[in-house]
Amino acid sequence: MSLTQKLINDGNAAVDEMLVGIMAAHPEHLWRPDNAPRAVVARHGPRTGKVALVIGGGSGHEPTFLGYVGRGLADAAAIGNVFASPPPQPAVDAAMAASGGAGVLFMYGNYAGDVMNFDMAAELLEMEGIEARTVLTTDDIASAPRDQRQKRRGVAGNVFIFKAAGAASDMMMPLDEVERVARHANDRTFTMGVALSSCSLPQTRRPSFDLPIGEMEVGMGIHGEPGVRRGPLRSANDVADEIMDAILAEMKAPAGDRVAVLINSLGATPLMELYILNARIAERLKAAGLVVHKTLVGPYCTSLDMAGASITIMHLDDELQRMIDHPCDCAMFRS
Amino acid sequence: MSLTQKLINDGNAAVDEMLVGIMAAHPEHLWRPDNAPRAVVARHGPRTGKVALVIGGGSGHEPTFLGYVGRGLADAAAIGNVFASPPPQPAVDAAMAASGGAGVLFMYGNYAGDVMNFDMAAELLEMEGIEARTVLTTDDIASAPRDQRQKRRGVAGNVFIFKAAGAASDMMMPLDEVERVARHANDRTFTMGVALSSCSLPQTRRPSFDLPIGEMEVGMGIHGEPGVRRGPLRSANDVADEIMDAILAEMKAPAGDRVAVLINSLGATPLMELYILNARIAERLKAAGLVVHKTLVGPYCTSLDMAGASITIMHLDDELQRMIDHPCDCAMFRS
Repeated sequence: MSLTQKLINDGNAAVDEMLVGIMAAHPEHLWRPDNAPRAVVARHGPRTGKVALVIGGGSGHEPTFLGYVGRGLADAAAIGNVFASPPPQPAVDAAMAASGGAGVLFMYGNYAGDVMNFDMAAELLEMEGIEARTVLTTDDIASAPRDQRQKRRGVAGNVFIFKAAGAASDMMMPLDEVERVARHANDRTFTMGVALSSCSLPQTRRPSFDLPIGEMEVGMGIHGEPGVRRGPLRSANDVADEIMDAILAEMKAPAGDRVAVLINSLGATPLMELYILNARIAERLKAAGLVVHKTLVGPYCTSLDMAGASITIMHLDDELQRMIDHPCDCAMFRS
Repeated sequence: MSLTQKLINDGNAAVDEMLVGIMAAHPEHLWRPDNAPRAVVARHGPRTGKVALVIGGGSGHEPTFLGYVGRGLADAAAIGNVFASPPPQPAVDAAMAASGGAGVLFMYGNYAGDVMNFDMAAELLEMEGIEARTVLTTDDIASAPRDQRQKRRGVAGNVFIFKAAGAASDMMMPLDEVERVARHANDRTFTMGVALSSCSLPQTRRPSFDLPIGEMEVGMGIHGEPGVRRGPLRSANDVADEIMDAILAEMKAPAGDRVAVLINSLGATPLMELYILNARIAERLKAAGLVVHKTLVGPYCTSLDMAGASITIMHLDDELQRMIDHPCDCAMFRS
């Protein structure tokens, strides 16, 4: 396979150079502690008595994770290499910088490497006398059957789930409550996606898998993990229907309930296609008697330059709606 | 050349279906007048005594144009087919719906088709007793020499230029003043871009031009117009240097002056690459003694699924800084 076209310098330096560019662009939102180049902390947000929400994971999903660091959302993020978990130290650095004495909540997608490294970070924090708990996101309904929700991966639903937990934390709820809201948000958030192309790593500049023209991969992960099936590329309406069928069946929301919708680009798919999907999604939700409270459309949780999209539905209740409506002001997201 | 992968239904219906999806996603920000499906109007913003800022142009550049419709920015947009000017009627519809009795300012990129159609719209409005003036954006420094600024195209600099004019209008300045601010903003805004791939139209699903792997097109337009030169794909730093050399030479900003920076994805280029560019851009601006007041990074003015990026620098003064800092709340942009 031929090389892909990228605006990079040295593929191995891409994450560090990206971080330099991010810190230069967002000095009003973000800072990094001395000697902790892979910990990014909100300038506004962390404060005494507030639970510190610390998120993180591999790079290549921007604006996830560090774009969601800011007042009303996450207090800090630990940054890994491309598609690789950060080691424990950046998570410790991020948590120490954001800690307000009310405990730390780690939140990240359910991937083995992240679980291992953040768990080690939590142990290191306990030795410093800082209580650290963890809520894993598991919104990707394609990644494991319904009765094995704890095995599912976290993908674009992160945005809503982190937002709910960040709002709870910003409202100065205690650690027990922030953790409860985070789990509740995760339980009610459902995502499924389709890939139309592979992404390619900056280090190799080659596609990570081969997806022939005219085919699509349904239910792939955000690191190019295999999906539930590969099939012919179908129309936007058919793709929206397949995903909505799966999500609505899982969600079992009674008519009259409210939802929040995220139509996410995996990187290379432009807004036009996302909004075409939304035309159908809105129709399907209406037909199910559901009320759309909020819709986000754009690149929110990406896989480098992968073409494709995911659909996330959060099944709101009064509490989650309040959390989703709570204002936030992050480097790459305001609401 | 093989077909490209897109999430669409019927290529000829793509713009109309996109608009359905946009209206479903953003009912709090946008509405369409009856019988005017290609005119999109801000729910909040237009009001009696306020100059109506009406923007527009072809589709395929999303979030340009209609994503910038909202309080504090544009009052309405006229929507064309993909890469094609809207006919006069949507521009008239948009202007009539947004008019507050203080005149209309049309703003759009300098392309022959847009000029012809918006000029006809202005004549139709004059017949209705509504004064309509026009400010063309001409920020693309690669598209014509410096002494022929009026021949240059409008590209991503639109975002800053529309924002300045929208702020002036939101501050209830009279038409003369809004027009003056718009021209002043355009005079001080400079953009140049590189394409790393062609885009492909929804109707054909084929690349509009052939750009071999390992090459890039410097200074292309946002419809795939030819650039100033084609050459080997260089590193992010070299690309940033070439563009910054050209912009700084045009801008002639004395040390100590402030700038606003926009690093724009043409569609398929992800945030990681844009921020890598910004690391170098920030260095270059600092070396020139310039102070970065604001940096925007992301897909702001795209060419469907084209890979590549553009850099825009607005040379601020006190007035433009106030306009750029003025709050806005649009469907696809808040600041």
